[in-house]
Amino acid sequence: MPTYTGAITAFRNVQAEMVGVRQEADGIDLDALDETCQRLRREGRRVKFLYVVPNFQNPTGLLIGREKRRRLLDWSATRDVLLVEDDPYREIYFEDSATEADVRPIKAEDEDGRVVYLSSFSKTIAPGYRVAWMAAPPPLAVKFEMAKQAEDLLTGSFDQRVIYEACRRGILERQLPMLRRYYQEKRDAMEAALKDALGDLVTWPAPKGGFFLWTTMPAQLDAEAMIPRAVEHGVVYVAGEAFFVNAPQTNTLRLSFSAPSAERIREGVARLASTIRAELDSLSVRAEGPSRAAR
Amino acid sequence: MPTYTGAITAFRNVQAEMVGVRQEADGIDLDALDETCQRLRREGRRVKFLYVVPNFQNPTGLLIGREKRRRLLDWSATRDVLLVEDDPYREIYFEDSATEADVRPIKAEDEDGRVVYLSSFSKTIAPGYRVAWMAAPPPLAVKFEMAKQAEDLLTGSFDQRVIYEACRRGILERQLPMLRRYYQEKRDAMEAALKDALGDLVTWPAPKGGFFLWTTMPAQLDAEAMIPRAVEHGVVYVAGEAFFVNAPQTNTLRLSFSAPSAERIREGVARLASTIRAELDSLSVRAEGPSRAAR
Repeated sequence: MPTYTGAITAFRNVQAEMVGVRQEADGIDLDALDETCQRLRREGRRVKFLYVVPNFQNPTGLLIGREKRRRLLDWSATRDVLLVEDDPYREIYFEDSATEADVRPIKAEDEDGRVVYLSSFSKTIAPGYRVAWMAAPPPLAVKFEMAKQAEDLLTGSFDQRVIYEACRRGILERQLPMLRRYYQEKRDAMEAALKDALGDLVTWPAPKGGFFLWTTMPAQLDAEAMIPRAVEHGVVYVAGEAFFVNAPQTNTLRLSFSAPSAERIREGVARLASTIRAELDSLSVRAEGPSRAAR
Repeated sequence: MPTYTGAITAFRNVQAEMVGVRQEADGIDLDALDETCQRLRREGRRVKFLYVVPNFQNPTGLLIGREKRRRLLDWSATRDVLLVEDDPYREIYFEDSATEADVRPIKAEDEDGRVVYLSSFSKTIAPGYRVAWMAAPPPLAVKFEMAKQAEDLLTGSFDQRVIYEACRRGILERQLPMLRRYYQEKRDAMEAALKDALGDLVTWPAPKGGFFLWTTMPAQLDAEAMIPRAVEHGVVYVAGEAFFVNAPQTNTLRLSFSAPSAERIREGVARLASTIRAELDSLSVRAEGPSRAAR
């Protein structure tokens, strides 16, 4: 159900109504999707598109399975719903648990022009180059081009040139295996630290790629409310709430292993563990009643 | 009355209602402005802000006079209307007709936080670096920052770094006198060519800076309709219509002297002259009636 906050903000800014769909271990739940779509249509609402991040979704790190990708594309044809496939993490798969074939874009099989494919160089070359791309059915691409021009006139031409040369000279291609290993090691560090420090208290789906670890804490904890305590312990995270369009799970948080070193990851997880244990203690004290706690 | 198309598009995209105000040789007509504002308020409409380009406005090249700048700021206080001062051309003044004092931003005198000042490095360092800046009253700046982040996350950090160094090392500062001379020579070339080739047929306010020459043709000519004929003659321009929010003057066009060489400017003006003369001939033939023309 959670999805990328940047997309949520962008859609909200144009006053779109958003409806979340349940996710399973291999990505979006197709039955829930179809039910939701049909229910919305019965209510007379127009379903404009489905937004998905099939590869290592931000925030959950989930990967939509191969079979499910095919069925998702079939579904979009059957129900005549456009797919918006946002794919910045494709190249960052971990070779111990995913292959190039697992991350093949849905767009690659799109013969009828039902998929708008979005990607970016911000996870592979550098976030500071604001260069991304889109593959869309031509009638839509023309409109997007006009809208983009009205918005920003153009994408920085120097940045585009640098990216172009990095691709043309094979620099990006040579870099990718390194990046996969680099982030996989950080994921390993974070998972090991979490198992050690919080194995009895939190769960997460094992990331097969990407930058994030989506953590679920005991139900009585509220990640948003816990932030001041986390700051006291010298650690921060993104509370899961920001990633939901409706019915947020407040006991979730997104941990990023992309930027910090393995050392810092271990330190951060230790601080997070202290935070969670302190918060649980304080809640159980409060549950026992303020009068006893005050004695 | 005409103003920058990029601003018109941006305002239109958020469904703003726009009302144009007459301009005189030294910029916006303050009486017309006040009348318009008061009329709109009587009609129960909220006047959110006044958008002005005081220095070498795109498309007219006009400069708001010094005295008028002061009065404009006073007016914004009296009528409690925010000013949005868009100022990308300030540095490109021509030393034969304007001084540093003439291009002083209205914002420089703004003690009460009534002015949102916008500028850019795209006319001085390079358009390909998409780096601009804003000076706004703090409560507005906070909102703009949030809106911008929702829009694009950040401005390219490499581009910002290059611009920062160009400023810090005085590269931009050293470049400006050169840029002023460079564009002034092109303006001279274009004005001379127009006087030679079309002096009897078109008029324009003499630009004291900037990149543009705003040309008014005989009333029976329509710049938009004339474009196919211009293309036949191997020249293009921007029809003035695009710069109006209401009541367009269709016999206007914007000529740019920024990019082409003096040689190309002369050639372009010669082609424009052929275009205009051919268009006038064809109109007079049509005015005499199709039967006579067909004989």
